[in-house]
Amino acid sequence: MSVVSAESNGNYPGKGVGEPVGVAILGKGTVGTGVLRLLSEFSHNLEQRIGGPLEVRGVAVSNVDKHKDAPEAAGLYLTDNALELIERDDVDVVVEVIGGIDYPRELVLKALRAGKSVVTANKALVAAHGSELADAANEAGVDLYYEAAVAAAIPVVGMLRRSLAGDQVQRISGIVNGTTNFILDAMASTGASYEDALAEATRLGYAEADPTADVEGHDAASKAAILASMGFHTRVTFDDVYCEGITGITAEDIAAAAKANQTIKLLAICERLVNEDGTTRAVNARVHPTLVPNEHPLASVDKSYNAIFVEAEAAGRLMFYGNGAGGAPTASAVLGDLVGAARNKIHGGRAPAENPYANYDVVGFEEVETRYHVNMTVNDRVGVLADLARMFSEADVSLSAVRQEESGNEAHLIVVTHKAREKNLHEIVQRLSDHDDVIAVNSVLRLHD
Amino acid sequence: MSVVSAESNGNYPGKGVGEPVGVAILGKGTVGTGVLRLLSEFSHNLEQRIGGPLEVRGVAVSNVDKHKDAPEAAGLYLTDNALELIERDDVDVVVEVIGGIDYPRELVLKALRAGKSVVTANKALVAAHGSELADAANEAGVDLYYEAAVAAAIPVVGMLRRSLAGDQVQRISGIVNGTTNFILDAMASTGASYEDALAEATRLGYAEADPTADVEGHDAASKAAILASMGFHTRVTFDDVYCEGITGITAEDIAAAAKANQTIKLLAICERLVNEDGTTRAVNARVHPTLVPNEHPLASVDKSYNAIFVEAEAAGRLMFYGNGAGGAPTASAVLGDLVGAARNKIHGGRAPAENPYANYDVVGFEEVETRYHVNMTVNDRVGVLADLARMFSEADVSLSAVRQEESGNEAHLIVVTHKAREKNLHEIVQRLSDHDDVIAVNSVLRLHD
Repeated sequence: MSVVSAESNGNYPGKGVGEPVGVAILGKGTVGTGVLRLLSEFSHNLEQRIGGPLEVRGVAVSNVDKHKDAPEAAGLYLTDNALELIERDDVDVVVEVIGGIDYPRELVLKALRAGKSVVTANKALVAAHGSELADAANEAGVDLYYEAAVAAAIPVVGMLRRSLAGDQVQRISGIVNGTTNFILDAMASTGASYEDALAEATRLGYAEADPTADVEGHDAASKAAILASMGFHTRVTFDDVYCEGITGITAEDIAAAAKANQTIKLLAICERLVNEDGTTRAVNARVHPTLVPNEHPLASVDKSYNAIFVEAEAAGRLMFYGNGAGGAPTASAVLGDLVGAARNKIHGGRAPAENPYANYDVVGFEEVETRYHVNMTVNDRVGVLADLARMFSEADVSLSAVRQEESGNEAHLIVVTHKAREKNLHEIVQRLSDHDDVIAVNSVLRLHD
Repeated sequence: MSVVSAESNGNYPGKGVGEPVGVAILGKGTVGTGVLRLLSEFSHNLEQRIGGPLEVRGVAVSNVDKHKDAPEAAGLYLTDNALELIERDDVDVVVEVIGGIDYPRELVLKALRAGKSVVTANKALVAAHGSELADAANEAGVDLYYEAAVAAAIPVVGMLRRSLAGDQVQRISGIVNGTTNFILDAMASTGASYEDALAEATRLGYAEADPTADVEGHDAASKAAILASMGFHTRVTFDDVYCEGITGITAEDIAAAAKANQTIKLLAICERLVNEDGTTRAVNARVHPTLVPNEHPLASVDKSYNAIFVEAEAAGRLMFYGNGAGGAPTASAVLGDLVGAARNKIHGGRAPAENPYANYDVVGFEEVETRYHVNMTVNDRVGVLADLARMFSEADVSLSAVRQEESGNEAHLIVVTHKAREKNLHEIVQRLSDHDDVIAVNSVLRLHD
């Protein structure tokens, strides 16, 4: 009978059942504080679920004085020397909840290389340097968990890592940014302008003082990169993700969508592009405002909730819904990961890691087929409609609907296309803008199907 | 440096990376056939994700002749001797998709005791004998997976096992039976009677020839037992689950609910009952038709879709939605589990198992607080309302709404209570039925809050 060697379970020694698992927490903002509270409140449960107690060896903060009197820090070792904390022999798992990219990257790499498993909530870090971190974890034979990096406690990373491990993901369409969903929902339910809805979101704490990362879609793009990497077993980074935010969405766009029984959502879409024989040609990830039919489950995701809709070959349509942000939900996801990492330290084994074996081409958005919904103001003269329709047909784009509404000498023209290459659609819109009879292209939105 | 011993990773030897993992499939009905198809279609992906190829050592069926020419059986060893197949040295993981209870129980126990990990889709087996199977798996140090037993490819078991491992589940409310959801949705959307909607479900293949297990709620009760066991770390079996089906739901009930902006759903509810100091008093699991407010995410789950709504202390509200039945979605869940079990055979470690450490009291439904929605026909005489209202207040049940509609000498009276002990509510309804001025108690439904 062969004995399971340390090598097959990672290069670092395991612990026995009942032995404590040492934890270093890096960062004590909203999430770090939430993690400390749950660690204290649930300590008995966590010990039972893990097979040994979790012991916090220390919390790294930038300013010890600022945190030393906080109730959740009572009895804990606070330090501003994160590197020294990580390297302690009695630290087995490192929780990184600092945020930012360069500094946490350095710390996480240091931890992994020292044989510590790492749990991070840092989407920007994972989206930018996920493969470097995964490689370091693999070399050291330790775990790298990041459920909290995407949609907080909605367990979409675990679902892609494990539950769908025997299936083939075709497309992931997610509302993964609560701020923008709150703004779009407020616009839809009150008729408010983008500016007013953003002001309300800021007032209520749903938007940060500088909302750029949210409203321009950068936050969602990080999550799209992570979801695509997991779902398609291919390395997709933040830079691969086409990104268009919601700052151009007007109250008129929202009203027109509602009239057509649609809702505008900012979606992160990760798509497998297939050849005619069904094989995979490439994958793509993108973020843009999207017209979602009201009967689609994503359309009714309101307020700051997140939801991820997954289409898989055998499983069919799945949706996961919940709080995608906030201290407690994010801390819940971090603790779920921490239990996993600690269990593996005691019981052996490693969590399935990022595994980019499929290595598909990651193509730009221009290669993807989408459907356009174009709203124009045009001169109301005989033949304009035919003229414009010909521009579409010459570009090999077929139309699924045309709607014209007259108002004086002008007409509003709404054109909905069938699926066509994004590049061709984009070019047609350019040419429409230049057409003498087109007074204005009021909005261009993509349609979810 | 200590070496990870075989004991800490299970009593059975691991395999090296690249070594094949032998699989025995027990059963070749819809799910078994789906599993074989996916195993063949995705073999390359599965090998990459596991670290070694899956090799099917044989398929156990009751009648070899019946299956030997099926395309998905090509090249496979078919046998009617399941026990012999299980015990082969080159079988590492056993997939049980036979159905029933006694025979699969014997096979699964045999497999676990022989050191094989087991993946089962059998909710009735797990709900009835889950703890016996979990004990056998623990003793042998192998895995017992059953994601497919609840809501097919909706990964709710994995979510409770892992993602919420650092949180505290307060309540699980699930639409976990597609047949009854199809029937209730058809009644709501077409105004059909229960009988007509059932006939339509049968015609379309959503209901079996004998629909008892579905419409009486037994199928949902099995799933409730499994969800409660996982969610509360307490052994809850099928016999612990109060169960009331949908056969008494009328078109009038559905119409009245719609008028009140509610939808009737058959819910499996698993609830943590708390003392005033917030500690856990007991847990309860039950299945009954429930009035769900239309703005609740469960209300819009239509057709035969399933959805599980989870409330956890830190994560907040989460919902998981998808196909809860069918060959392909169930096979997807089985394969996800199979990848997990096979990974552990190669990389070491064990999946978190049923872990009933909390061992809460499992109390009957009469101990639970619910809200009642009672629809009565009463004599339209002065003082009836006051009389009946007094019956509630004498039983210490406060009312949240009373609505009266007259029609000739009779009146329809709808009474909605605040939360009160199910036992008290039940008794009041008995006494109402006996009251001289109550002509009929037309319906008694519980309200989801």
